[in-house]
Amino acid sequence: MDLNTVDVVLVRPARPANVAAACRALKNMGLSRLTLVGEPPIEIPPEARALAYGAWDVLDGARRVATLEEAVAGTTTVVGTTGRSTPGAQPARELAARASSLAAGGRLALVFGPEASGLTRRELGLCHHTVHIPTSPDHPSLNLAQAVLLLAYELRLAALASPANPSALGRRGGLATAGEVENAIGDLRTALLAIGYLNPASPEAILAELRQVLVRAAVTPREVTLLRGMARQIGWAADR
Amino acid sequence: MDLNTVDVVLVRPARPANVAAACRALKNMGLSRLTLVGEPPIEIPPEARALAYGAWDVLDGARRVATLEEAVAGTTTVVGTTGRSTPGAQPARELAARASSLAAGGRLALVFGPEASGLTRRELGLCHHTVHIPTSPDHPSLNLAQAVLLLAYELRLAALASPANPSALGRRGGLATAGEVENAIGDLRTALLAIGYLNPASPEAILAELRQVLVRAAVTPREVTLLRGMARQIGWAADR
Repeated sequence: MDLNTVDVVLVRPARPANVAAACRALKNMGLSRLTLVGEPPIEIPPEARALAYGAWDVLDGARRVATLEEAVAGTTTVVGTTGRSTPGAQPARELAARASSLAAGGRLALVFGPEASGLTRRELGLCHHTVHIPTSPDHPSLNLAQAVLLLAYELRLAALASPANPSALGRRGGLATAGEVENAIGDLRTALLAIGYLNPASPEAILAELRQVLVRAAVTPREVTLLRGMARQIGWAADR
Repeated sequence: MDLNTVDVVLVRPARPANVAAACRALKNMGLSRLTLVGEPPIEIPPEARALAYGAWDVLDGARRVATLEEAVAGTTTVVGTTGRSTPGAQPARELAARASSLAAGGRLALVFGPEASGLTRRELGLCHHTVHIPTSPDHPSLNLAQAVLLLAYELRLAALASPANPSALGRRGGLATAGEVENAIGDLRTALLAIGYLNPASPEAILAELRQVLVRAAVTPREVTLLRGMARQIGWAADR
């Protein structure tokens, strides 16, 4: 696990203090790439900046984008954090141990939702994997910066445990990026709506299931091209 | 590791906010016993108490003593934290894995020094073991509450990993059988031939690629049903 290949993404954080404290936590653990999602972008007033003590480079270097889609477009693997153990969510340690092979030589996005509500169902649908921190059921809720700290710590320890961890999937060639997979999902959406397979009132649930299949399969750019060609042909069949 | 046998000891903490945040971190990880060392005892004003949100029982139940000797008198094992890797200090994870056998049926004290200076040489001398958190050498210094969080997390995971606590790693449910996957591939073959996506002279190469995607994804019976429904709908679109 190369920690430089990890993008930490904070989606619509509400409290500047949490953003600043998260920067410090990242720096403590040797991570440095931060993306802040929000429109308008969150402002960090001077009194909150103080909490990023020594990690101002992380704060000032943070990328700012409007949507989660933009934030993760260049990554191969998107991991969303959930506040509780949702079905399929992996414990942080297990995820960290697999992070290197999941990223498969590309970039890994680690996505945190807003403090109060977490990631929306739609945003979780954009994630290829979900991860949770096994806190006490009596008092499960972690502060945002603490959740960032614990996951960064797990990634750091995974990195220390495997200094040079070449991609396990290298022989098949690179993975498709999240953006490429979304292009395929977008084409399938159009085509499957055209033939009446998807319910126009609520197409997202089925699309999320299809996305999960593609992500678990760790599809290649070649396979994305194949799926997009298939979607196009389905669309033509519908238009005849 | 029984988390109820751990006494967390904060020696002369300077900032009430850190004590309150440490209480919350302990509660998050299922620990509850806190001892505050200091003479006079540290006071926690109301604005700092807010940071112990939901963990006021830990804060209000904290034992207050004047010296580290008093704090650890009833424990069998005393572990001191150091800010850096001092000779003999064990990484947090290693220490946590051994904590249960170190405590040997008695109580274990986990001791944190003051924010600015850490434990004195004399206080470290009272510790049976020392532990450190492997932070980045570029930015090693953790906030007190964050150090408490990380060590409490390691102890919690060690407790969950011990035989008495079977891990609940709920899987996604059963995999589809190879026969079920072939049924889906057969339906897709029919549908994709009907819409002219597959070349009737040689459909197998593309179908083999699709099969590889499904097999790598380790699809479930539910996902096979979804794909077969999609194939059927594509066929209907072609027949109109």
